[in-house]
Amino acid sequence: MTSSTDIVPLFAFIKRVAARVEETMRADLDRALVGNDPLLSQVLEYALLNSGKRIRPMLAVVSSRLCGRDDDDLYLLAAAFEYLHVATLIHDDVIDHAENRRGVEAVGKKFGVAAAILAGDWLHARSMHLIGTLAGQQGLNIFCDATMAMVDGEFLQLRHVADTAITEEQYFAVIQRKTASLISSTCEIGALFGGGTVDQIAALATYGTKIGIGFQIVDDLLDYLGDEQTTGKQVGNDFIEGKLTLPLIHALSQAPKPGRNILLNCIRGDRSLAGACDTAHQLMHDLGSYEFSRQKAGQEVKEGLSILKIFDRDRHGESLAILEGLAGYILTRDR
Amino acid sequence: MTSSTDIVPLFAFIKRVAARVEETMRADLDRALVGNDPLLSQVLEYALLNSGKRIRPMLAVVSSRLCGRDDDDLYLLAAAFEYLHVATLIHDDVIDHAENRRGVEAVGKKFGVAAAILAGDWLHARSMHLIGTLAGQQGLNIFCDATMAMVDGEFLQLRHVADTAITEEQYFAVIQRKTASLISSTCEIGALFGGGTVDQIAALATYGTKIGIGFQIVDDLLDYLGDEQTTGKQVGNDFIEGKLTLPLIHALSQAPKPGRNILLNCIRGDRSLAGACDTAHQLMHDLGSYEFSRQKAGQEVKEGLSILKIFDRDRHGESLAILEGLAGYILTRDR
Repeated sequence: MTSSTDIVPLFAFIKRVAARVEETMRADLDRALVGNDPLLSQVLEYALLNSGKRIRPMLAVVSSRLCGRDDDDLYLLAAAFEYLHVATLIHDDVIDHAENRRGVEAVGKKFGVAAAILAGDWLHARSMHLIGTLAGQQGLNIFCDATMAMVDGEFLQLRHVADTAITEEQYFAVIQRKTASLISSTCEIGALFGGGTVDQIAALATYGTKIGIGFQIVDDLLDYLGDEQTTGKQVGNDFIEGKLTLPLIHALSQAPKPGRNILLNCIRGDRSLAGACDTAHQLMHDLGSYEFSRQKAGQEVKEGLSILKIFDRDRHGESLAILEGLAGYILTRDR
Repeated sequence: MTSSTDIVPLFAFIKRVAARVEETMRADLDRALVGNDPLLSQVLEYALLNSGKRIRPMLAVVSSRLCGRDDDDLYLLAAAFEYLHVATLIHDDVIDHAENRRGVEAVGKKFGVAAAILAGDWLHARSMHLIGTLAGQQGLNIFCDATMAMVDGEFLQLRHVADTAITEEQYFAVIQRKTASLISSTCEIGALFGGGTVDQIAALATYGTKIGIGFQIVDDLLDYLGDEQTTGKQVGNDFIEGKLTLPLIHALSQAPKPGRNILLNCIRGDRSLAGACDTAHQLMHDLGSYEFSRQKAGQEVKEGLSILKIFDRDRHGESLAILEGLAGYILTRDR
């Protein structure tokens, strides 16, 4: 749906926004950390300024621009979403005992669990302070609700670990909370900050939800189909951890009995046998489970884009092109 | 300064406030957790409704009453401080690998590290949502600043682990951030919510800071002098963990060389030798280090109380008696 050439202006825009958000984060950290322990600064800078795609800040910026506002404060608002996102990554990595993140050592691995948990807490507080200051009561409520929804999504995911009876509906409930809620709140609060109408705010919230779901489906697909060198993650990791995501849920529902048994054995521990994962992988391919998942992601993203038609293309061509480019990138990305 | 009979009305008041705050927390959790994972509810109820002194909610209530407001919302505001406090306890216990808290298994021990970290994050978000809703922008800023100060205090404390050169001033910087900042913010935001004047708000913030410092000094004293059965903590635990608190800092600064060497050896690991801690303990007693610390706590608390004279005793006799009773309790408590 989107050719690779359409992605060039998207990347240029993301890069511009990312640079400005990073500059804003540096200034904000300097201001907020006056008189604080130097190790706290070091941990926060390490966690925040070590690359990252900066998709959330970019979405906040475009959402606000679509509603008519683009000023310095917008980049501080955008930084708050990166703060919260990074806080959740740091805490998730402690929970998962992850060694690496974004191509470098995870915060908990490098600075210890205490520093990681505490730095995450600091980022939580700072992000809520910024959102409350810049987007008021309503913005804060949306933001806190998204944070609580993320926690609930993680609990739901824990509940379904190694649950071979998990349904497609339950999978969608997990990713809606775990991933889409923060992305949706980013667009919604960006629109609110930008002075959008009720309809504009709702449309951008829905766009965020839909592309958030699409994003997570593709993320789960990359766990099976990605190149380890490119994604920086071990292929089939979800299999090993007992996370049942869409391709596997589809395969379990479609496989005839012998195939289903291969999958079940693989989930239940026989995956250590040589070739077990390869067999399962081939089976999922043959059953069309990857294709099914990719189509589902495409459908979500398409629905997200269609709702943007309420914005005037003549006035907002550039911003709409960015959101469309992002949608295309989400579906075609390989990392 | 306060006899034990003065504490009776304090306890009755605390009990009344605690019951109402607990009822409010239950209702708030029910409301906020509709449709959420049942394990999340279970973890939060376990963490929040397993006793606790409820000193912070009580301080929020009295501070608001002193400024003229006492209604249902006040108890929801008060609950938010308990949420944040419990969030920090849960995360601290994960960091310290603590087995027990408030006489029962720590959350991380009972439900696992993932559930503990996530439940703390949920409580962070919920508390900020409540404070932002009930105490507005200014209240949220004070609350977020206190949260960030707590994190900074923990980092400062980590920096000084086993640091035998730590000064009294550095110790006070740690406990000001780690403990006093949240207690101070509780009184300050309570006063703000209650519609207090600038002077009233400032006075209650200072009262909170001073009794917070006094509270932590006594907490650190109880680590040496407390009864294990009563406090539920191992006596001399700070010694074992290399936390240098006021009695030890005083002893190190006052001891003649041989005594100082006994203390240093004990801090550096010879404490496993039979009787090493007992010798250090006796030395600290002989040097007047416990008495010195108790006097420092008394002085802080006295300064905190003196600032309350701006409130009219005829109108606010009951509330002032509670704050005075709390000050006395802080100094004489044995758990």
